[in-house]
Amino acid sequence: MTSLPHFNVSFSSSPGSTNLMDTLEDLPPGIGQYDDFHTIDWLRDIARDRTRHRHIQKKRQESCFEKVKSAHDAWSGWVCVLFVGCAAGVCAAIIDIGTTWMSDLKEGICVDAFWLNREQCCWAANDTLLDQLTCSQWHSWPQLFGLPSDSGAGGYIISYLMYVACALACATLAVMLVRVFAPYACGSGIPEIKTILSGFIIRGYLGKWTLIIKSVCMMLAVSAGLSLGKEGPLVHVASCCGNIFSYLFPKYGKNEAKKREILSAASAAGVSVAFGAPIGGVLFSLEEVSYYFPLKTLWRSFFCALAAAFVLRSFNPFGNDHLVMFYIDYHNPWYLIELIPFILLGVLGGIWGAVFIKYNLKWCHYRKSSNLGKYPITEVLIVCLVTGIVAYPNPYTRMNASELIKVLVKQCGPEDDIALCDYQRNLTDVNEAFKSSPLGPGVVAAMWQLALALIFKMVITIFTFGIKVPAGLFIPSMAAGAIAGRMIGVGMEQLAFYHQDHHIFKEMCNEGHTCVTPGLYAMVGAAAALGGVTRMTVSLVVIMFELTGGLQYIVPLMAAVMTAKWVGDAFGREGIYDGHILLNGYPFLDSKEEFTHTTIAADVMRPRRNDPPLCVVTQDTYTVDDIEMVLRDTDHNGFPVVVSHESQYLVGFVLRRDLSIAVGNARKNQDGVVSNSVVYFSNHVPVNTVVGGPEPLKLRRILDMAPITITDQTPMETVVEMFRKLGLRQTLVTHNGRLLGIITKKDVLRHVAQMKNQDPDSILFN
Amino acid sequence: MTSLPHFNVSFSSSPGSTNLMDTLEDLPPGIGQYDDFHTIDWLRDIARDRTRHRHIQKKRQESCFEKVKSAHDAWSGWVCVLFVGCAAGVCAAIIDIGTTWMSDLKEGICVDAFWLNREQCCWAANDTLLDQLTCSQWHSWPQLFGLPSDSGAGGYIISYLMYVACALACATLAVMLVRVFAPYACGSGIPEIKTILSGFIIRGYLGKWTLIIKSVCMMLAVSAGLSLGKEGPLVHVASCCGNIFSYLFPKYGKNEAKKREILSAASAAGVSVAFGAPIGGVLFSLEEVSYYFPLKTLWRSFFCALAAAFVLRSFNPFGNDHLVMFYIDYHNPWYLIELIPFILLGVLGGIWGAVFIKYNLKWCHYRKSSNLGKYPITEVLIVCLVTGIVAYPNPYTRMNASELIKVLVKQCGPEDDIALCDYQRNLTDVNEAFKSSPLGPGVVAAMWQLALALIFKMVITIFTFGIKVPAGLFIPSMAAGAIAGRMIGVGMEQLAFYHQDHHIFKEMCNEGHTCVTPGLYAMVGAAAALGGVTRMTVSLVVIMFELTGGLQYIVPLMAAVMTAKWVGDAFGREGIYDGHILLNGYPFLDSKEEFTHTTIAADVMRPRRNDPPLCVVTQDTYTVDDIEMVLRDTDHNGFPVVVSHESQYLVGFVLRRDLSIAVGNARKNQDGVVSNSVVYFSNHVPVNTVVGGPEPLKLRRILDMAPITITDQTPMETVVEMFRKLGLRQTLVTHNGRLLGIITKKDVLRHVAQMKNQDPDSILFN
Repeated sequence: MTSLPHFNVSFSSSPGSTNLMDTLEDLPPGIGQYDDFHTIDWLRDIARDRTRHRHIQKKRQESCFEKVKSAHDAWSGWVCVLFVGCAAGVCAAIIDIGTTWMSDLKEGICVDAFWLNREQCCWAANDTLLDQLTCSQWHSWPQLFGLPSDSGAGGYIISYLMYVACALACATLAVMLVRVFAPYACGSGIPEIKTILSGFIIRGYLGKWTLIIKSVCMMLAVSAGLSLGKEGPLVHVASCCGNIFSYLFPKYGKNEAKKREILSAASAAGVSVAFGAPIGGVLFSLEEVSYYFPLKTLWRSFFCALAAAFVLRSFNPFGNDHLVMFYIDYHNPWYLIELIPFILLGVLGGIWGAVFIKYNLKWCHYRKSSNLGKYPITEVLIVCLVTGIVAYPNPYTRMNASELIKVLVKQCGPEDDIALCDYQRNLTDVNEAFKSSPLGPGVVAAMWQLALALIFKMVITIFTFGIKVPAGLFIPSMAAGAIAGRMIGVGMEQLAFYHQDHHIFKEMCNEGHTCVTPGLYAMVGAAAALGGVTRMTVSLVVIMFELTGGLQYIVPLMAAVMTAKWVGDAFGREGIYDGHILLNGYPFLDSKEEFTHTTIAADVMRPRRNDPPLCVVTQDTYTVDDIEMVLRDTDHNGFPVVVSHESQYLVGFVLRRDLSIAVGNARKNQDGVVSNSVVYFSNHVPVNTVVGGPEPLKLRRILDMAPITITDQTPMETVVEMFRKLGLRQTLVTHNGRLLGIITKKDVLRHVAQMKNQDPDSILFN
Repeated sequence: MTSLPHFNVSFSSSPGSTNLMDTLEDLPPGIGQYDDFHTIDWLRDIARDRTRHRHIQKKRQESCFEKVKSAHDAWSGWVCVLFVGCAAGVCAAIIDIGTTWMSDLKEGICVDAFWLNREQCCWAANDTLLDQLTCSQWHSWPQLFGLPSDSGAGGYIISYLMYVACALACATLAVMLVRVFAPYACGSGIPEIKTILSGFIIRGYLGKWTLIIKSVCMMLAVSAGLSLGKEGPLVHVASCCGNIFSYLFPKYGKNEAKKREILSAASAAGVSVAFGAPIGGVLFSLEEVSYYFPLKTLWRSFFCALAAAFVLRSFNPFGNDHLVMFYIDYHNPWYLIELIPFILLGVLGGIWGAVFIKYNLKWCHYRKSSNLGKYPITEVLIVCLVTGIVAYPNPYTRMNASELIKVLVKQCGPEDDIALCDYQRNLTDVNEAFKSSPLGPGVVAAMWQLALALIFKMVITIFTFGIKVPAGLFIPSMAAGAIAGRMIGVGMEQLAFYHQDHHIFKEMCNEGHTCVTPGLYAMVGAAAALGGVTRMTVSLVVIMFELTGGLQYIVPLMAAVMTAKWVGDAFGREGIYDGHILLNGYPFLDSKEEFTHTTIAADVMRPRRNDPPLCVVTQDTYTVDDIEMVLRDTDHNGFPVVVSHESQYLVGFVLRRDLSIAVGNARKNQDGVVSNSVVYFSNHVPVNTVVGGPEPLKLRRILDMAPITITDQTPMETVVEMFRKLGLRQTLVTHNGRLLGIITKKDVLRHVAQMKNQDPDSILFN
């Protein structure tokens, strides 16, 4: 057995002395970076950042400039998230304004100033008519073609054709832009961001081209009237801002683990601007997308979301001071008995979520595996054509989905003359105006239209989510839920109205307001549907009440969302985003699911029983030539360093990238290093070697002396726990001190997939 | 070197086979439990739970009864938190009702039905006079003594005396009950709950006696008019419920790590019922108290908080349908310029927080180290006497602190005739009623009284928080902040009113409402003060808008709270709870603070360089006698098992408790085990030993074959990270496979304290 002359050397290191970590800065450039589609090593990155931090702290005493640099470093996290928040706010405002303009373009144009949307056009014209959306400056397409305004079959056909044509044009432009400039800009982006945040590198996914193309195409896709939302993609856009701004601060730009802190904050800002829900955004980041979310990131996310919401508010795109998208103006109490329909909505939401996930994944899988995937443009055009043709005749599908939700969550007041509010009311009596009344013909017709709209939206969304344009899922799901909710709400209202004297409903109807508020049901339904699809809970409830201002309806919302989650989970554990991660085979180690199998590390580690032995490097016998051969013959990302081949006692771990850079560097720049120079990973370089042979190469500095090790008997549940919580890239397996094998994140992911009876080879690596 | 005949034995274990963990159930009782004031081993406890879970899953096929048992087990987490939530709701309702009654008792009594509080008394009497709080049934003390109602010096003196006397009586009773029955019932309990949740055992801290005594004494202490709140202690009460109910479910009751999941949910329920803020409660649990908070716990906490809020709402203690304690009835917009006073309030809140923390800790330290600590009853009586005497003359200190906050956050409407609303208004014109107006004499007087109240509250709270009665900090801090906020708000209002035409204020005043809403400033001030004291951020903002319903004021609240946190942190990093944890020396490894020093594991591990060698056990040479000697001579909590004394290659780790139980058990129950029986921790028991000598004792089953190990070169930042994230109790330190030493959580805490220049011996252990 090799003697260990430097056995006690470790004790010489005392607090404050220069150790391994402090010298990393002097290493050749490139060490510590990652390749594309690689997994990051959180522990190592965090350690690198602390080294950097200590270096700055130490130099602080030297000069005034260093003091400023140190202060800048200390605040750079806050400054960076401030920038990111502001940028996200500006992007969201531009996208909001652009979307409104383009959506209005489907129906008409502002003759004098084509760059104004309908509302602005009429504001500018200053001759707003009764319904505020018709004015002399705004010409609908039939008007522009010389037909009398909207009336008659000819006008209808022209409107219809122009609507479909505009939609097709927008969709074509969107899909072409995505294909040509930024293929990563399609979809919602949330599954990929989850994967990136869990410690995976996808270069270009958060780049400036993705940002620009995604922003533009989002407006186009929404304007095309497709059944998709811009809320999910806004998270992607905000994350792009986060990535871009992080390069201004080397602390974050050059350290992948630290960069993820900024990205977590950015995704909070994304939801914050998408819904005007800063707290909801923070919780969304925490519950849904983030992987590593320490309290410091919580505070920064909060600040980032605040900045974003504030900037967006300054642009005031929602047109009221509340910063609330679907503001509800009622404060009617709800009653215990109403929990039954609320929970029913939760059940429906859960079922709808499960069905949607199942068929959407099936369709996406079919797209991937068949010829359909080769014709993305055709697919988008077909979906767009079908959507346009079917949607136009029904007012509830023709209108923008956010508009629809806004209408559905409202309560019918005396001033509302839409079909949905056509109750047989005594409008002259102010006190009667809000009371429940029998249905008028308008409401009955609206119910039929809503039912058709519901079916259409449910079907088309399955085919829409996944096409190659930016497409979010929040608004379409919420719209479907809101329709179902409103219908059940109207049903409950009539039930209560016709049985006012029944003891169940007595309490509900004996006050001066409506017995049942159908708008509340729409709100609960929207939450339940979104909960079923995404399986969010707390963040969803917070987003919902930030969206609507309905703080007093927390209990109904919570009940419905929780039920939707339970019911959905009963059909299948994963939400839509996890489903897409799995479908695309991203290497994502889910921290929600518990690993409950009885396997142990020895079952998972490589080499397997009949494999050739693990490729290791010894601490003091390998020559430069040997190392280069090892690098050439294998493609492992790192090599354990052992005392000797016979004993296999573990010394440390060296990364392939670092080793190859260091050896190449030494070959080029260090005199006397030749092919048969001995490479020393130990501190102790024997004198005789130096005298007799060629110059030795000392590589202790790139050796990780503190690799995480486990024993072969460690249960895999502990191993998975360690990979999740410590963000490991690999761990070495020992038995009684001897090296037995290695487990990489890839092995863990494969094993987890295998245990779940999934195909382990479907997971995308490198 | 010892040969390793069982080197490959580990490979024989395949998925699903019975391994170490699966047999733990058959071990003698007591193994796997902890002693008082010990640290728990999360990894081990979680592994134990999964073993239990697998055991149930396996037996599920056997019979219908087992199926039911399995379903019960799967749902027991949800059922348990449901019970806990309901129990917390009931406790809170009882405490609320009791507090109101006792508080009213200070001023008078219901003659016909003494068990009714003033409001109920007048409701029952049905002859409510104009201000709803005076009726024939309710007799104030002077009335009861035959004096004409309240008027005159005599009446005033009697009221005064009765007020002070009642306060003293309540306080005495409270402190006596705490001293005699449940010494753990004093204080807010949040620092201790944080410590317990971080994995420490304090037996009895969450027991039934603590629950009962704390509930009763909370009512007494609040009724005594002391400057303390019942919101913090409610978290303790809810946690007691959590602990008690967890014993109904062995899954949680018998597993300390799992129990903490219930306790996290319970603390969310505590805040939920304290403020009627379910979402705020969940976030409080996440941000402030919990240590290990996986998403499953988030969902359960959410459900628990929901159940608690729902039950409390059924009792309706806040007397309105909104479930909102300080409901605000205004929706006035705020203006950009107002951010300046809001941020100023944040700065003041931060400064006040820092000052409060500093002097309160100093005073508490003085109490601990001087004779004062020996006379807790006297201390309480003095504080109570001073509070009573000073508080009575000033209406704003005489009233309950929650009442005060409620008054301060309100806007002055036309129907308000309190001094604070005495503006020179034209009350006949409805449109004018809410407009800003010059101050009346009432407001000026109220300002002076508020200023005095502020000073008094700030001073007395420093001395009150920490006395030996249940005492929360939320309400007193918020009251102080609300007073400061209201004063600044009134100042801003007058500034804006007198400079209405100035271009800064022009926009603010030109609409139909008041220029500035002083109530909003009070709300922001309350949040800022609480933020400065506790350093909460997101959870505080959510609690604030759940408390007030002021959803549109998120940005002002966020700005003030964030500023308060920053300013507070500039003076000292820790919040009041962390300060008290440190003061009391609880072994709490803070997950918020980063460890940034350059020490390595070799610097921290035991044995130190000149210490005697580490006490180890070999795998196959120790006799029962040797083991018993080791147990007798040392007091370590566990012993590493090595291959041999010479090689020191690590085999596993055995806990003292398990070892001593197993050996004692074998001595009693196993035939042939005598003093010189060899103890085998290895799988492989040589045949010759069995034939020649006495019966060997096989203890492989209690050996932890997968202890977490690190190398001696591991930086301490990584070690601290591992202790925090994996919840370790100890880790073994190796060098090239040989065992060098051990690092326990105690060593880590000592080292962290040392690096922060604190006295490492101040930390409480065992």
